[in-house]
Amino acid sequence: MEIIFVGMKIFKAVKSLQDNSLRLKLEGKSIGFVPTMGYLHQGHISLIRAARKESNVVVLSIFVNPVQFSPGEDCRRYPRDFKRDCSIARNENVDIVFYPSSGQIYPQEYSSYVEVNGLSSLLCGKSRPNHFRGVATVCTKLFNIVQPDFVYFGQKDYQQAIIIRRMIKDLNMPFKIRVLPLLREESGLAMSSRNRYLSKTARENAAAIYKGLKEAKDLFKNGQRDAAKIKAMLKKKIKEIPNVRIDYVDIVDSKSLKSLSQVKKQSILAVAIWIDKIRLIDNIVF
Amino acid sequence: MEIIFVGMKIFKAVKSLQDNSLRLKLEGKSIGFVPTMGYLHQGHISLIRAARKESNVVVLSIFVNPVQFSPGEDCRRYPRDFKRDCSIARNENVDIVFYPSSGQIYPQEYSSYVEVNGLSSLLCGKSRPNHFRGVATVCTKLFNIVQPDFVYFGQKDYQQAIIIRRMIKDLNMPFKIRVLPLLREESGLAMSSRNRYLSKTARENAAAIYKGLKEAKDLFKNGQRDAAKIKAMLKKKIKEIPNVRIDYVDIVDSKSLKSLSQVKKQSILAVAIWIDKIRLIDNIVF
Repeated sequence: MEIIFVGMKIFKAVKSLQDNSLRLKLEGKSIGFVPTMGYLHQGHISLIRAARKESNVVVLSIFVNPVQFSPGEDCRRYPRDFKRDCSIARNENVDIVFYPSSGQIYPQEYSSYVEVNGLSSLLCGKSRPNHFRGVATVCTKLFNIVQPDFVYFGQKDYQQAIIIRRMIKDLNMPFKIRVLPLLREESGLAMSSRNRYLSKTARENAAAIYKGLKEAKDLFKNGQRDAAKIKAMLKKKIKEIPNVRIDYVDIVDSKSLKSLSQVKKQSILAVAIWIDKIRLIDNIVF
Repeated sequence: MEIIFVGMKIFKAVKSLQDNSLRLKLEGKSIGFVPTMGYLHQGHISLIRAARKESNVVVLSIFVNPVQFSPGEDCRRYPRDFKRDCSIARNENVDIVFYPSSGQIYPQEYSSYVEVNGLSSLLCGKSRPNHFRGVATVCTKLFNIVQPDFVYFGQKDYQQAIIIRRMIKDLNMPFKIRVLPLLREESGLAMSSRNRYLSKTARENAAAIYKGLKEAKDLFKNGQRDAAKIKAMLKKKIKEIPNVRIDYVDIVDSKSLKSLSQVKKQSILAVAIWIDKIRLIDNIVF
């Protein structure tokens, strides 16, 4: 344990954080937990604020989880700025930052994994086959270490939130999940730590995604229920962005994540694209 | 919740047991947990007694876990006698019996599984490919429901104990595992709920397994280190049992469960056989 910001503790070792959490629980303290990969933005801050409101102790984890990246992906160049993250956390009255090394989380001979079947193979799971297994596994570990009463996820990673919710229910984990709204930059681009890797032009161009999502919602409002037509409009719109490649554009059921041919209220329009090799996701709820 | 034995509570619902456990933890009580599939024998009783010694509250679960059986296996005809189990539990001063239905544990849309790679595909995992995934999953669930400080397993299911130990460590589960010695009937046959399905003759014949294991140990004591030779002796011995079929006879490392060609101290000699279609396992430590 190491204290570098007044009033906020930073833990790097699994055991010391877990012991601390078990002690807090015995004292009857409630723990709100915000798991992140760091490089915090307003979306993360909204999660921290929600945790601050309903828990005695707020724990923020910062860990770029190698197990949820595939070999060709951006694990190594995922943006990191621990000092900046700590000063944001301190400003938001976070009590504890958990900042483990990969070796702390995945020691030699590590071999246990959590899988949520079905949900994990749809949407992002198609192009990132082991991604959600990695997410479910690291979350299970972090939850066991932090011993939360509440955990907080953002709706930008809609599929992730659904999968974690399912896992918590299936495995009888003894706490509640809160899923908070997606936040957007002024241009409408969904906030993401990865946005910083977009060139100025790409960042401006990427705003077209949200414009397309809004148009899709307008089509729905005006009576359009044919998923194929709404998707075609959005794909066309996205393809106008320079250097873009579409991973998927899909309209799915909000719980099963299965593709729909008829759009209903609460259906999800979800997209994933690459711009300049940066992968972005976004979604809206009809 | 339902009370049918004075001083011992029986829970059938996940939520009521979990709430009760969380309350006990808040009160600072330690919980010792013995997960079983019921039809208790002296082996289970030794686990209960160990739990009774070191915990304030002893929880025994009785659940024949369908997910750890393959289609052709004996899930349906696995021996059950809830009343007899309860009276044994009461006698041993168990505080709480958890006796859920399959629907309580695996509700509709259930889809989350825990896997311990590597270890799960060796020995019993070869002929029972999803067995340990089912065991790891149900244990994770039961642990989250019961909130134990200590969990107890028998060494008869050596591979199971190793896998659960690995899972607890890997997933940072906040409690300790105790693995207790295998117990034997007077004949030397390893105690198992499945023994009751053996005919009188088969039960007598099955005692040859332990005789073979002891001979193997004698060979080792007399300097034999060649695993192939020890296995050949044991296989020959077992094949003399009428109506027997060998699943495996193997000498493995006590931690990695990998096959050894040279036997060492602490190596495990593990066997699985079918007699009259009843599958029996046994092992000794060199």
